[in-house]
Amino acid sequence: MPQTLRKKKGLILVHTGEGKGKTTAALGLAFRALGCGWKVLIIQFIKGDWKYGELDAAKKFEGQLEIHQMGEGFTWVVKSDERQKELARNAWEFGKKAMMEGQYPLVIFDEINYVLDYQFLPLDEVIEALKNKPENVHVVLTGRNAKPEIIEIADLVTEMKKIKHPFDEGIVAQRGIEF
Amino acid sequence: MPQTLRKKKGLILVHTGEGKGKTTAALGLAFRALGCGWKVLIIQFIKGDWKYGELDAAKKFEGQLEIHQMGEGFTWVVKSDERQKELARNAWEFGKKAMMEGQYPLVIFDEINYVLDYQFLPLDEVIEALKNKPENVHVVLTGRNAKPEIIEIADLVTEMKKIKHPFDEGIVAQRGIEF
Repeated sequence: MPQTLRKKKGLILVHTGEGKGKTTAALGLAFRALGCGWKVLIIQFIKGDWKYGELDAAKKFEGQLEIHQMGEGFTWVVKSDERQKELARNAWEFGKKAMMEGQYPLVIFDEINYVLDYQFLPLDEVIEALKNKPENVHVVLTGRNAKPEIIEIADLVTEMKKIKHPFDEGIVAQRGIEF
Repeated sequence: MPQTLRKKKGLILVHTGEGKGKTTAALGLAFRALGCGWKVLIIQFIKGDWKYGELDAAKKFEGQLEIHQMGEGFTWVVKSDERQKELARNAWEFGKKAMMEGQYPLVIFDEINYVLDYQFLPLDEVIEALKNKPENVHVVLTGRNAKPEIIEIADLVTEMKKIKHPFDEGIVAQRGIEF
C-alpha cells in the first residue's frame, strides 16, 4: 500500500451496468462487513419474483443484518407511477433516516439507480443526503443506468458488463444461484 | 420467465475484468447459496495482505462453508515460478477433487484466472475438469484476464469494469469494505 494513501472515510460505492453481479457484489460486501462485526442495512427498492436466498442467510446475523423490503415492494410488474413514487419515497425515507443516524456502518440501497432513472425519486434529494451522510457510513448504490450526478459524487464505481449470459442459451434462473 | 427456459444445469460463472467486485460478487453468490442450505467451498488462489472479513463471517456457517487458503498461499509478493506452480497445483488438486465429488453444489475458484493467465496451472487440464464436472455443481471462476477458452465453456461471464476507484483519489482500503 503506497504511503500516500492515508485518507479514510465512509465511501460511496456504485455498482451499475447491464451485467449481472450488481446486487450480488453488494451482498458480498455485506457478508465481509458482517464478518467484521458491522451492522448492515439493505434497502431493497425492487422485490424480485423469487424468494431471495439472502433472506434465509440473513437469519444467521439476526440483530446485525437488516434487510428492508418496502411494503409490497417494487416488482417488475407495472404499477401506476404515483404508486411507484409512493413506495420509493417510503423506502428512501426509511433508508435515509438510518443512514443519517449512523448506526449502520454499511447501508445498501439496492436498485436505487433504477428508481432514480425512472424519476420515482428526486435525484437532487438523494445527492444532497449522500453529500451530508455521516463520515463513518459506507453506502452502496446498485442498479443499471446510474446517473452521472451519482457517479460524480461516488468514490468507487464499477460497471458490470455482460459478456455472456445463460438466458441467451435457454437456461433458467435457479434457486441458490439467483444471479 | 419465458416458458422456453427449461434447461437446468450446474453453471460455470466467470467474473473477470480490471474492476473491483469479482471476488465480492462470488462471495455474494456464496451468501445466497448458504441461505438456501447449500454447502459452499471457496478455494483462494491468492491470499491478500489483509485478513478477510469473510473468514470471520464464515464461522457463522461452520460445516456449511469452507474457505480453503492454500498453505502459505499466493500473495502478490513475488515468489519463484516453481513455487507458484507448486502452490497452484495444491490448490487446484484440492478444489478439483471436491468439485468432482459433487458434495459442494457451489465451488468458487477465486483468482484462478490470474493463475491461468500466468501459466502457473495448465489451462487444458482445468478446461477438461470443468467440462466433466458433475451436473449439480455450480462453479465460479474469478480473476482478471479470463482466458478465451474459459469464456468459451462458461455459461455466464461478467466483466467488472472500473469506472472510478478511490485509490485514484488517495483513499485507503479499509477493513469491512475490502473491495
